Amino acid sequence: MEEFTVVGKRLPRVDAVVKATGEAMYAADMELPGMLHGKMLRSPHPHARILNIDTGRAERLQGVKAVVTAKDTLGYRYGDLILGKGDEPFLATEKVRFVGDEVAAVAAVDEDTAEEALQLIDVEYELLPAVFDPLEAMEEGAPLLHEHAANNIACKSTMRFGDVEAGFRRSDCVREDRFETQPVCHAFLEPHAALATYDSTGKITFWGSKQSPYFTYRNMPRALGLELSKVRIVQPFIGGGFGGKNEMFSLDFTAALLSMKTGKPVKIVYGQEEVLSAGRQRNPTIMDIKTGVGKDGTIMAIKCRIVANGGAYISIGRMTRYLMGSVLALPYRVPNLEYDGYRVYTNNQVCCAQRGHGVPQVRYAAESQLDMIARELDIDPLDIRLKNALQPGDNTVNGFRITSCGLTECLQKAGEIKKWREEWGELPPNKKRGIGFGAYGFVSGPRVAGHNTAGAMVKVHEDGAISVLTGATDSGQGSDSCLSQIAAEVLGLGLDKVRLVMPDSEVTPLDPGTFGSRVTFVSGNAVWIAADDARKQLAEVGAELLGAHPEELVFRNEQVFVRDDPEKNMPFTKLVKSACYSGTGRTIMGRGYFAPELEVPNYETGEGNMSATYSFGAQAAEVEVDTDTGKITVTRMKVLHDCGRAINPMHVEGQLEGSVCGGLGQALLEDKIKGKDTGQASNPSFMEYKLPSAVDMPDIESEAVETIDPVGPFGAKESGEGVQVSTVPAITNAVYDALGVMVKTLPVTPEKILKALEKENEE
Amino acid sequence: MEEFTVVGKRLPRVDAVVKATGEAMYAADMELPGMLHGKMLRSPHPHARILNIDTGRAERLQGVKAVVTAKDTLGYRYGDLILGKGDEPFLATEKVRFVGDEVAAVAAVDEDTAEEALQLIDVEYELLPAVFDPLEAMEEGAPLLHEHAANNIACKSTMRFGDVEAGFRRSDCVREDRFETQPVCHAFLEPHAALATYDSTGKITFWGSKQSPYFTYRNMPRALGLELSKVRIVQPFIGGGFGGKNEMFSLDFTAALLSMKTGKPVKIVYGQEEVLSAGRQRNPTIMDIKTGVGKDGTIMAIKCRIVANGGAYISIGRMTRYLMGSVLALPYRVPNLEYDGYRVYTNNQVCCAQRGHGVPQVRYAAESQLDMIARELDIDPLDIRLKNALQPGDNTVNGFRITSCGLTECLQKAGEIKKWREEWGELPPNKKRGIGFGAYGFVSGPRVAGHNTAGAMVKVHEDGAISVLTGATDSGQGSDSCLSQIAAEVLGLGLDKVRLVMPDSEVTPLDPGTFGSRVTFVSGNAVWIAADDARKQLAEVGAELLGAHPEELVFRNEQVFVRDDPEKNMPFTKLVKSACYSGTGRTIMGRGYFAPELEVPNYETGEGNMSATYSFGAQAAEVEVDTDTGKITVTRMKVLHDCGRAINPMHVEGQLEGSVCGGLGQALLEDKIKGKDTGQASNPSFMEYKLPSAVDMPDIESEAVETIDPVGPFGAKESGEGVQVSTVPAITNAVYDALGVMVKTLPVTPEKILKALEKENEE
Repeated sequence: MEEFTVVGKRLPRVDAVVKATGEAMYAADMELPGMLHGKMLRSPHPHARILNIDTGRAERLQGVKAVVTAKDTLGYRYGDLILGKGDEPFLATEKVRFVGDEVAAVAAVDEDTAEEALQLIDVEYELLPAVFDPLEAMEEGAPLLHEHAANNIACKSTMRFGDVEAGFRRSDCVREDRFETQPVCHAFLEPHAALATYDSTGKITFWGSKQSPYFTYRNMPRALGLELSKVRIVQPFIGGGFGGKNEMFSLDFTAALLSMKTGKPVKIVYGQEEVLSAGRQRNPTIMDIKTGVGKDGTIMAIKCRIVANGGAYISIGRMTRYLMGSVLALPYRVPNLEYDGYRVYTNNQVCCAQRGHGVPQVRYAAESQLDMIARELDIDPLDIRLKNALQPGDNTVNGFRITSCGLTECLQKAGEIKKWREEWGELPPNKKRGIGFGAYGFVSGPRVAGHNTAGAMVKVHEDGAISVLTGATDSGQGSDSCLSQIAAEVLGLGLDKVRLVMPDSEVTPLDPGTFGSRVTFVSGNAVWIAADDARKQLAEVGAELLGAHPEELVFRNEQVFVRDDPEKNMPFTKLVKSACYSGTGRTIMGRGYFAPELEVPNYETGEGNMSATYSFGAQAAEVEVDTDTGKITVTRMKVLHDCGRAINPMHVEGQLEGSVCGGLGQALLEDKIKGKDTGQASNPSFMEYKLPSAVDMPDIESEAVETIDPVGPFGAKESGEGVQVSTVPAITNAVYDALGVMVKTLPVTPEKILKALEKENEE
Repeated sequence: MEEFTVVGKRLPRVDAVVKATGEAMYAADMELPGMLHGKMLRSPHPHARILNIDTGRAERLQGVKAVVTAKDTLGYRYGDLILGKGDEPFLATEKVRFVGDEVAAVAAVDEDTAEEALQLIDVEYELLPAVFDPLEAMEEGAPLLHEHAANNIACKSTMRFGDVEAGFRRSDCVREDRFETQPVCHAFLEPHAALATYDSTGKITFWGSKQSPYFTYRNMPRALGLELSKVRIVQPFIGGGFGGKNEMFSLDFTAALLSMKTGKPVKIVYGQEEVLSAGRQRNPTIMDIKTGVGKDGTIMAIKCRIVANGGAYISIGRMTRYLMGSVLALPYRVPNLEYDGYRVYTNNQVCCAQRGHGVPQVRYAAESQLDMIARELDIDPLDIRLKNALQPGDNTVNGFRITSCGLTECLQKAGEIKKWREEWGELPPNKKRGIGFGAYGFVSGPRVAGHNTAGAMVKVHEDGAISVLTGATDSGQGSDSCLSQIAAEVLGLGLDKVRLVMPDSEVTPLDPGTFGSRVTFVSGNAVWIAADDARKQLAEVGAELLGAHPEELVFRNEQVFVRDDPEKNMPFTKLVKSACYSGTGRTIMGRGYFAPELEVPNYETGEGNMSATYSFGAQAAEVEVDTDTGKITVTRMKVLHDCGRAINPMHVEGQLEGSVCGGLGQALLEDKIKGKDTGQASNPSFMEYKLPSAVDMPDIESEAVETIDPVGPFGAKESGEGVQVSTVPAITNAVYDALGVMVKTLPVTPEKILKALEKENEE
């Protein structure tokens, strides 16, 4: 008999049908009687003082119901989920700090009228000098974005573990390189959307496209001057988030503010141009990394200085800066580590979390450099990784406790691609092929902003189906399916018997939402406990009916039976009916809470254990480079991922393939291009911004390496982000393998390849 | 220090503001993208065979998306919540049985198109003889409505307790009278409305104006051939129910069916004319009652035969018939009781529960007759009631167990109105005044259709506010406020800290809904237990913080303190924050179930204890009759009601005053008039159907007599229906007191008064 009947099975996603048919309701689809439409007026300047805003003409336009500016707000500033010291007003107060900064908003009877009204708002600006480059921004005399941040340094980490200088002295090879990464967008297809309605009891009900409705739940009342319980956040379907929908943004606040002003529901939906030109993005970085390695390949020390171009406001930047440093301690044993991380204000779009959150940039640098070192030391790139790979039971130098860890197995399996070389045969002179490796370790739920805990409820319906209530959000990653499979397995039900209830702050238990790959591990455990609590309640009734002890009952395949006497059995539905109808007519509601045991790290010094477990993985890429054109084709990838246990192997594969797509985009294609001195977006549409499409995707072999985590639900841990970390270096290392040149700035475009080849030929 | 801080207080209703401003969303207010509008085609004939329905012309009308008739249904028949043997198709199959019976339905892009399409549906009828009078319907050879029901008897009760003939032999006064009651409407101002949306996962989500969404939850899947958990019932605000919105009606089913057919959301809203002419109504009755009383006023025996004109289908008729008999054993000691109850099919609108459900009719007869007997025996009407009043600890002859009972005190306080006589002074010759009494006993949650249990959840928010989740519905009676007060009191919170979450079958615990005055007693206990469960979870944290044992903690006025050392205290909000944020970051969710202990009665023989407790009360009416015009003015009423404990005395008063209004309407004004041979409604609008308005209302002194029920939450029991029972006889007895004549058919119109006076003068 197989161990499980639902967990580990390749079952379709629970939301597949309604998403495929278009029936799934997203925030932008929603309508309420009397609803108004809101639009945002944005700054055309990268840096300017607002001298005056005249909304009179806009207010007089027929159909306009309200115009709001900063003077209608309480001046609350959002961002900074770590210290709660936000710096970003929902509507610009004295200054605008990037092209697209929100200045005013209109609510009108329809979108066209709202759009027309925007043109009638007269804003008088005093232009200020702007700075776009983070190194320039840190220089003395650079234009200052925020009074409180000298040299435009929003925050800084200084991590010192061991003695890096001693480490370098003991090293046989020490390299120093600068790597740079570009700004890339989250590329969710559903733009930001918010619908808010304020009623006479002083209560706001809000539907928005939020990965973490909980953050909006906590920020909204502060921003509006309401009690927490005067705000209700209800979660519709979400069309992708990738880290870009965690925070409460201007439209969320502004829809609520306009509803308060007008007494009508107000909906604001951003256009994709707004999202791409004024929304969040991944941190561009300048990374100076120095690694020392012994001649046997043992890593002795890493020293790294990273300057992240954070844009105009801090957002989740304190976390980004911490992560960029701390994950230098993953996935290899690094005995000495030094990191100086700066997140710098510039007059650019604001940066926030994005799949992998800071880690892809750093691992791109570290893994690329490792291959260059391996070449210098004449060590196989795979061997140098196996040599240093973290092992179960390791504690990293900064305090990460490694419990389950399948990195070595992942690397070994990735190594199987070496046989690909044998398949290449003879290549035309203008074609070069190469293979490259990347590896990673990643968190399963770091603690951010208060709790990283989860609650769940499992309600058993009279027909033996169940509802699972959590505050966890499925922003597209498939967590609703994962949580449903966990609950189904515990109660021995088919997946079709589970309904996942979407978050509603009034109803569902607390859950901080989707970030840091926490949902399966943290919320999944809460669901496990809640389902088990329901199972125990049913087992008490079942034990009486079957003449057994509750602990002896097995719930499986919609049957309940006595473990050592399976002839004693009954259908689950019958047990439920008995429990619900006979006797007390009890409602079966299971309840679960989970809080992972971990020490919240110090985000400045980097000390502490960020996550209760870590996922690991390795990737191998095969590329073909056309040396005439510089064009790189990623032909094959092999992806090995230690996700603890794959609750649904098909969905894990989906995540891995999606991560490969995201990483490939960052490695080769994507770049947000801005006018050098204007800060104006040059490619804010998916026609011009190059996302990988199906034809760009390599053949992917992906495999879950199951380590069965001791704490994860059914042994599961992260599988949503980690893989994206190693995609970029696997590709850049494959190019390095093919050409012998390492391009140290992303994306690795044909132009850069040709230039690098030219330079190499010159040398 | 007062015992309670929220319970027992005159606090405003929790839904007052949004209802006053019009923001409360009712089913008819709701809109979904792509929504269609449905309309029903109704029978113009009281009894006819459907030979053919041609929907072709209607289907071809531009804008029409679907037309459905019985052939689109599975033939499921609803009604009969007792045995589950429904007889009413959602769309008429072979026959129509009353004017207004639903024949077909249309979904179209707007209401006008749907209305137009109805005219294009060609129905070929073969007219059948109809019968409207229940006694005629019971005669041999009468037109038969249903094949299964010989003599059109839908159901029958035969109750025999004691020996009535012996009782009559021992009596000094035995009277036999026939009383008759008219059909009256529920008069809710929100008409029936239903919105259903079917998605590709095969799931129906439904919003409707339902007092008992649970009944729809259970019937909808059977009617549509779906699994129970493929139906989600969500409850919006309800604009009055009064017993008329318990069942799942044709529009509820048809909206869902049309949504399944079209793949679009479909909304159907009945017009008031449809509600009044084709909706449910209170059972008209013909009651032959015989009562024997000893010369000291002791009731010796009651024998009663009631024929209820139930209309075309059974609905909740089995319960009505049972109640009409069993409540003859309330509120007096009746040692010998015989009852034959018939619910008869006729070609009339269908009858169902209505505030007091069957009891007002019977108590009108019994209480009126009691006054006639008192006069014959020369006993004061109040004394005869006091003589026979049930007392705590009594068991009635049919098995009701009387626990708390304040009837005697209610009667004594009602008796204080005798001093009103002294205030009358000399009256003009054409003015007569009188005072009359009525009394009642009523249930607090009878068991109907499976369970009479309730579940509840209390979720504690991080700011110390709470959500209360129940499946109980507030159809206007104020139960949301009542349940909120209970939860607030248990946790020592202000009422403003409580949010009551509306029923949603996917989310909220099971609760059968609003009927039989069950919500305060049954659901209230579940809420009490859930709130106490949350309190215990918080007390554990609080005890640690305050250095005490959890049992020692008192929650009061948003503070938590140690009972014998109140200096040790902390704000509730602080305790909640500690519980939520420190340690495990726990979500506090209390859970409660309640099932009253009672024996489900045998509805045929009447044996059993229907309710875990009974409310009692007495009313006194003062009337002035103009003997020239026959006009009766109810000038004053005194209402005494043993509701156990008044959770909110102001709301209890509201219920009592509302009941007086309903009873006054039935006593003097209301009557659904039909064409004698056509069955066509003559007054299906609130312009023509006479409801009491503010100017008809007497001055009312109402008072809660608190007996503190041993089982009710904080000692509370019913206060929503009972009073309506005694309003009618209090008024008819006052008229009897004024004029010396008893009008034995309702309503007591001026015409009947004049006729009675004329007859008396002749004699």
